[in-house]
Amino acid sequence: MKYSPGLHILSEFTSNQTHLLFNSDQFRALFDQLIVANQLDKVGEVYHDFENGGFTAVVCLTESHMSIHTWPEYKLATFDVFLSNYKRNNSDKVKRIYQSVLSFFDGVEMQKNEIVR
Amino acid sequence: MKYSPGLHILSEFTSNQTHLLFNSDQFRALFDQLIVANQLDKVGEVYHDFENGGFTAVVCLTESHMSIHTWPEYKLATFDVFLSNYKRNNSDKVKRIYQSVLSFFDGVEMQKNEIVR
Repeated sequence: MKYSPGLHILSEFTSNQTHLLFNSDQFRALFDQLIVANQLDKVGEVYHDFENGGFTAVVCLTESHMSIHTWPEYKLATFDVFLSNYKRNNSDKVKRIYQSVLSFFDGVEMQKNEIVR
Repeated sequence: MKYSPGLHILSEFTSNQTHLLFNSDQFRALFDQLIVANQLDKVGEVYHDFENGGFTAVVCLTESHMSIHTWPEYKLATFDVFLSNYKRNNSDKVKRIYQSVLSFFDGVEMQKNEIVR
C-alpha cells in the first residue's frame, strides 16, 4: 500500500521588519497561534536566539514540523512547513500557514518550493 | 549584499528495517554521532515516539536543522537536512549526512530534492 506523506513548502523571503527577524519573541506567539488555529498537535519545540541577532526555531508536530531561520543582517529568512496527511489532507493548512508567516513579516518571496512528499 | 543560506536535501525512502523505523532509540544515537562527526552545534532537539510505532524528530542546530518522520507500517520515512553556510560551505556535509542516514536504514530512495536556498 502506498502512502504519500504530504505537502512541504520551503521558502526564502526578505523582510524590512528587521525587529521581527532579530529575535524570536514575537514570532513565537505567531507560531503558537497558528498551531491552535489549525488544530495541530505540538509535541516539542526549540527556539534559539543568537547573541548578535537572528534566531532559529523548529516546532515538532505529530503532523511533522515547521522551522524558521533568520538573518536580520541580510533581511532574510528561510521558512519550512511540512504537514503529513496521516489523518486528513492538510495541504490547504500548509498553504495557509505559509501565507500567514509571509504576511507577518511583510515578506517578499525570493524562492518558494512546494514538494509533494 | 546577497547571502545564500545553503543546501537543503529532502528525501523519502523505503526501508525493510522496520525495527529501526519503529522507535527512535537507535536513530538517536546515529543523529548524535553525525553531529559530532560533522562538528555541528546542536542547540536543542525533540524526539517523539508514537504509541503504535513510528517516530518524529527534529534537531535544531546553529547551522539550521535536521528532521525525520517514520511510518513503519508503510516501511517509509521522510528525512531533511539543511545546513547554512554562514561560517563555511557545508554542502558536502549535507550530502554526507544524507548518505549516512540512507545507509543506516538500508533505504531505497523514492524521491530526493536538493534545494539551494
